[in-house]
Amino acid sequence: MQDIRVQKTFEALFALEDIREIFRGTLPTGLNETEEQEFQKKISALKKVINELESGTGKPEVFRLAGNLPVRDREESFINIQPIQAAGKLTVDARKALIAYGDGYSTCDSCKKPFRLDKITKPGIADFHSELADFLNMDEARVVPGARRGFQAVASSLLEKGDIALVSSLSHYTEFLSVENAGGIVKEVPLNENNIITAEATAEKIEAIIRETGKTPKIMMMDHFDYQLANEHEIKEISKVSHQYDIPLLYNGAYTVGVMPVDGKDLGADFVIGSGHKSMASAAPSGVLATTEEWAPVVFRTTQMKGDLTERKFGIKEVEMLGCTLMGGTLFSMMASFPAVKERVKHWDEEVDKSNYLMDRLLSISGSKVLSEYPRKHALSKIDTTDSFDTVAKSHPKRGYYLSDELSKRGIVGLFPGATRAWKLSTYGLSRDRVKYLGDSLVEIAEKYGLEVR
Amino acid sequence: MQDIRVQKTFEALFALEDIREIFRGTLPTGLNETEEQEFQKKISALKKVINELESGTGKPEVFRLAGNLPVRDREESFINIQPIQAAGKLTVDARKALIAYGDGYSTCDSCKKPFRLDKITKPGIADFHSELADFLNMDEARVVPGARRGFQAVASSLLEKGDIALVSSLSHYTEFLSVENAGGIVKEVPLNENNIITAEATAEKIEAIIRETGKTPKIMMMDHFDYQLANEHEIKEISKVSHQYDIPLLYNGAYTVGVMPVDGKDLGADFVIGSGHKSMASAAPSGVLATTEEWAPVVFRTTQMKGDLTERKFGIKEVEMLGCTLMGGTLFSMMASFPAVKERVKHWDEEVDKSNYLMDRLLSISGSKVLSEYPRKHALSKIDTTDSFDTVAKSHPKRGYYLSDELSKRGIVGLFPGATRAWKLSTYGLSRDRVKYLGDSLVEIAEKYGLEVR
Repeated sequence: MQDIRVQKTFEALFALEDIREIFRGTLPTGLNETEEQEFQKKISALKKVINELESGTGKPEVFRLAGNLPVRDREESFINIQPIQAAGKLTVDARKALIAYGDGYSTCDSCKKPFRLDKITKPGIADFHSELADFLNMDEARVVPGARRGFQAVASSLLEKGDIALVSSLSHYTEFLSVENAGGIVKEVPLNENNIITAEATAEKIEAIIRETGKTPKIMMMDHFDYQLANEHEIKEISKVSHQYDIPLLYNGAYTVGVMPVDGKDLGADFVIGSGHKSMASAAPSGVLATTEEWAPVVFRTTQMKGDLTERKFGIKEVEMLGCTLMGGTLFSMMASFPAVKERVKHWDEEVDKSNYLMDRLLSISGSKVLSEYPRKHALSKIDTTDSFDTVAKSHPKRGYYLSDELSKRGIVGLFPGATRAWKLSTYGLSRDRVKYLGDSLVEIAEKYGLEVR
Repeated sequence: MQDIRVQKTFEALFALEDIREIFRGTLPTGLNETEEQEFQKKISALKKVINELESGTGKPEVFRLAGNLPVRDREESFINIQPIQAAGKLTVDARKALIAYGDGYSTCDSCKKPFRLDKITKPGIADFHSELADFLNMDEARVVPGARRGFQAVASSLLEKGDIALVSSLSHYTEFLSVENAGGIVKEVPLNENNIITAEATAEKIEAIIRETGKTPKIMMMDHFDYQLANEHEIKEISKVSHQYDIPLLYNGAYTVGVMPVDGKDLGADFVIGSGHKSMASAAPSGVLATTEEWAPVVFRTTQMKGDLTERKFGIKEVEMLGCTLMGGTLFSMMASFPAVKERVKHWDEEVDKSNYLMDRLLSISGSKVLSEYPRKHALSKIDTTDSFDTVAKSHPKRGYYLSDELSKRGIVGLFPGATRAWKLSTYGLSRDRVKYLGDSLVEIAEKYGLEVR
């Protein structure tokens, strides 16, 4: 099913990198005779690939990079419904930025006093930081190597040994780990019968904790949409409850920041954390930690340490950030995607619409259920096909793998191989045509195996 | 001075990304008519660029990516002597891997039980982890988002509030920050008259600390080569002293791992930390933390936290790693460069040789000094041109900027703009021709301004 032109696009990109490498080794005075010959040779090779690309001919010639990495064409040759990859897929601008800025310390070309990443003005890294804060309607923002490093910074700043952190019963494991790392203890707020965290349940849990331990939690870490069901929790109301007890609220926006509008001040968040590689079309590991004027001096506190002998101090460096955070192409991929990200959050309603369209197609297959709240408010959903696709698996020679095989034959990947009962998928960023194709494919497979379609 | 072909190489790469984008939006059944037309249009544009590239004609047409990022041609159009960028420059394989694997969670295509990055076998991320440990002759290795995150993990694991960490008087600020973050206190070992940390000075400092505080340091963090002078410190002997006091040794290999052979066991290191973007030809932020069988259960301890309500546990996740560490193209850039990195460390003597060649050229300019130990044992050096190039700056209309201007005119960048007194540079990875050109250029500038050349 793969279009040879996808392979040839990669081969042409690689051939150009080979050409680029010649310039990386030459003198500023220009290519010498040997290098010129090499250049011409590589240009010929490139032109052959371009001809094949144009005409859709030829055979794959590059299979592995550096001897062991297959060429990854998951996004070019397939529709990818993998639940956590969808919104981290790079924009074309981010891919170009990675090409130009991939080298290790490419952020540091024009670093000058005070020597801190978020102060660099050439290119506009400092501006990007203010824009990030504005985007989230918070006062200060820093980039971090993944949302988890944001949780870690906040937990490390706010928790002492034995302190309690309140989390959701659907919280991500990295929230657990960041609390554990800081010596704290997690307490979970229960879900209601619809798998939603309510403000009421939050207040009750806080009261119970105070009653049982005599201690008030030091932080509330709450996912707006959780990673398991992508249900929307009562974040704004929870924030109010939290503040009634003087508990600062960490808004976990790993599944919201970069895909839907997030207004930190309106939500009453003290910390807003987002994931670059999960929801901001950025290379990994990347993320954002934004906070208020009140909390910035705590979580972005600068070093107070002094060398006992040299009396050295590193004044402006922030302890939790460990100085600079994202030094190279990873940051530039975030920056290059940012204009598109700012635009796409305005169209979140369309993403939700596509998500619901697909759920309806799925529900038309008798026995299928949506485990997430329904109608959907998110592009990521958890579904249960125990009474539909799984009934086929029981007698199919390939067992549960038949479903991923059938989807794969239709150019759809990202379903956990073998899964036919509870599984997750995301429609984020797929065109209407692609979502329709996806729905058609599911129905087609159902019909092929004699499942009832309403 | 810039070769238009460099610009056209970038433009061709970008044009191919535009073509790739078409495939990313289409149906698995293939391009439709509109998409085919777009494809043909973009192919025509690409072919025009390729023709210009081949013939070295045309004018620059792409200036900014995503509206604000200039095309970075520092490594293609110049000789870059910036001290920290040299060994982080990507190999051609790493650049290809970034192209293929740039998308956010590209590591996770085939993630399955037990769901941890270093256990992924497709592609061979698990194997890469064992190879990394072997490469450093240590028992276990993890990738981390920068060497500093390795320091943080070790400091957080070993230090309690008020504990003492012993560091070098030339230690990097991130060692300070990681200790401060863990609530510890740094104590510095003094340099000898040659700016070297000796085992003797280390033993004396430990004794003094015990005498004054009654406490033995909990960790020794020692740079093999420091970041300021890149002098070699008595790491192996220091390690012995350290162990006599039962103090575990963290070997800071930010300037060694990936450029010269490092044998952790032979050095007696309990932890070996390297930087991907500083010395392993990798995208940032990346690094490695390797340790012994003895310390792995401490620094790579798995989570013990349990949800009070759900009783959830995340068994295999490592607390200090916060689960997975480098999820996307950053890791693949490390992996793709690794074969070249393993090879290049065998040729460290040649790098040292080139470094000394350049120092000798510099010293031929009367008044110039090498502030680092000399003869050089490293590619990075700190030099002092107060009595040579700086004497010109005093009366030059451009002041200190004349030197970076003169170098830049000759296609050499990376000198801190305006610096004419103490400054750093690295010859790492430059060809002999490039190093000679660099030496010739310095001498030429000296002669132009009437400095005595011996």
